[in-house]
Amino acid sequence: MVTDSVPEAQPGGFAERVRQRSRAIRSWLCIGLDPDPTKFPPKVPRTAAGISQFCQEIIQATQDFAVCFKINSAFFEAFGSAGWKALEDVRAGIPQSIPVILDSKRGDIGNTATAYAKAVFEALNADAATVNPFLGWDSLQPFLEYGGRGVLVLCRTSNPGSRDFQQLEIQGEPLYLRVAREALQQRVPADVGLVVGATHPDALERVRRLDEEIIILAPGVGAQGASVAQAVRAGSNSNGDNLLASASRDILYPSSRGAPADEARRVAELWAGESWRVKEHDGAPA
Amino acid sequence: MVTDSVPEAQPGGFAERVRQRSRAIRSWLCIGLDPDPTKFPPKVPRTAAGISQFCQEIIQATQDFAVCFKINSAFFEAFGSAGWKALEDVRAGIPQSIPVILDSKRGDIGNTATAYAKAVFEALNADAATVNPFLGWDSLQPFLEYGGRGVLVLCRTSNPGSRDFQQLEIQGEPLYLRVAREALQQRVPADVGLVVGATHPDALERVRRLDEEIIILAPGVGAQGASVAQAVRAGSNSNGDNLLASASRDILYPSSRGAPADEARRVAELWAGESWRVKEHDGAPA
Repeated sequence: MVTDSVPEAQPGGFAERVRQRSRAIRSWLCIGLDPDPTKFPPKVPRTAAGISQFCQEIIQATQDFAVCFKINSAFFEAFGSAGWKALEDVRAGIPQSIPVILDSKRGDIGNTATAYAKAVFEALNADAATVNPFLGWDSLQPFLEYGGRGVLVLCRTSNPGSRDFQQLEIQGEPLYLRVAREALQQRVPADVGLVVGATHPDALERVRRLDEEIIILAPGVGAQGASVAQAVRAGSNSNGDNLLASASRDILYPSSRGAPADEARRVAELWAGESWRVKEHDGAPA
Repeated sequence: MVTDSVPEAQPGGFAERVRQRSRAIRSWLCIGLDPDPTKFPPKVPRTAAGISQFCQEIIQATQDFAVCFKINSAFFEAFGSAGWKALEDVRAGIPQSIPVILDSKRGDIGNTATAYAKAVFEALNADAATVNPFLGWDSLQPFLEYGGRGVLVLCRTSNPGSRDFQQLEIQGEPLYLRVAREALQQRVPADVGLVVGATHPDALERVRRLDEEIIILAPGVGAQGASVAQAVRAGSNSNGDNLLASASRDILYPSSRGAPADEARRVAELWAGESWRVKEHDGAPA
């Protein structure tokens, strides 16, 4: 419908590529590209071109330490079609060796869901996408049919309001845990993963107890109050693996006074090290 | 951030504008613009330009009978930035007198939600948007701050899988009803509305019993199995009002052999009449 041929997923599938890169660079840090123009350094224009330029500089500066980049589509959409073009440019600017997660939290039904899956896995050629399970499993089926792509299902999000529904008790367990359990039955051909906010270490522990192998994406590291070490300790498996500690604000908009790209690199290196140290101290040797 | 000035909502707010137009044209029919290229007539190109052309023809042919148009963003996103440009063109092509719902089911947290709200209410200047409540009420707050815009909260969607989570029992009531009850406490400054699939007349009745005034959007009329009359009867208030019966496929892709635009107009006229007849037969006089 959109492209003549569907771009093939990279060999090995999303989860395995993430694990390989993690071992290669000794990091479980995912860097979230959330280009919020209200926080830009004064020199960067608050335009679609500006968000593209800003992201490219962050990618250049931090790529040695990022297992994945996670692109937040909202900040691009706010600039309309010009913003969507910037999103395409930013995605294309990430080296092939680094898996890309499109964080767009889509969820819809039938052929609409099929169109969203095409948008993310074909038009944008993202390696993984976050999805919202509220509409039920048939709504996620079109995503799950993309072999080797990552489909990261929201379970417990990092915001305080996530308690309003995700934490509600259903037959003795919170809704988020039911979502997680059911997601584990939906594994193939896509690589299913789960999203659990780093701000909820208890939820990270409970979800990890369900499965050793699944990739958990834990956003909210840094500004939202959780440390990298806390997130990895709570959500990684018994080897210290499979937990993507995702940070954005503290890397993109460091409070210190150095050149922004240099500061971003410095924080990314620090936190990549921290995300790996848990494995060295607590986990079995790789 | 995006535009120099926020486009003001039309006077009266979304719900009141919908009611006024409904009285003026004697219809409760909402027409869903779901431009699925796999269903296009042979002459329409399966490109971004094609979906724009197709939608413009449908708008021209059916606007006399549509209380609202509901634009489904997924089919545009599938064409990347060119598709998003087509979305802007289609939105701009709808006459000012007709409220426009962007059906994009967004839901995210903090400044990300703010960016999504800007995308829909500023960059696209939609009069209303569908939103997904799974992330909790703080995630919808940035939408709710737009005075006079419609914020249509998903409660029970029209697909079979909606039972997976929306129907789960929580303290004696299904989750979708709890979402509806809590949404009713979030009314201002935006105009909150609810989304309940026309395929669930029981859910339409239960949600309507909570409130007479709220606008309920009921997608799934026609191809998904519910008739216009069934939807309006189940979900309208005691005057036969406030239920947007939303149809897409049967209007956009009629099975009969006439010219597609003529057929779309014929079905739209028929169903607009049907959506109003319930009011004339069962409701109090306007």
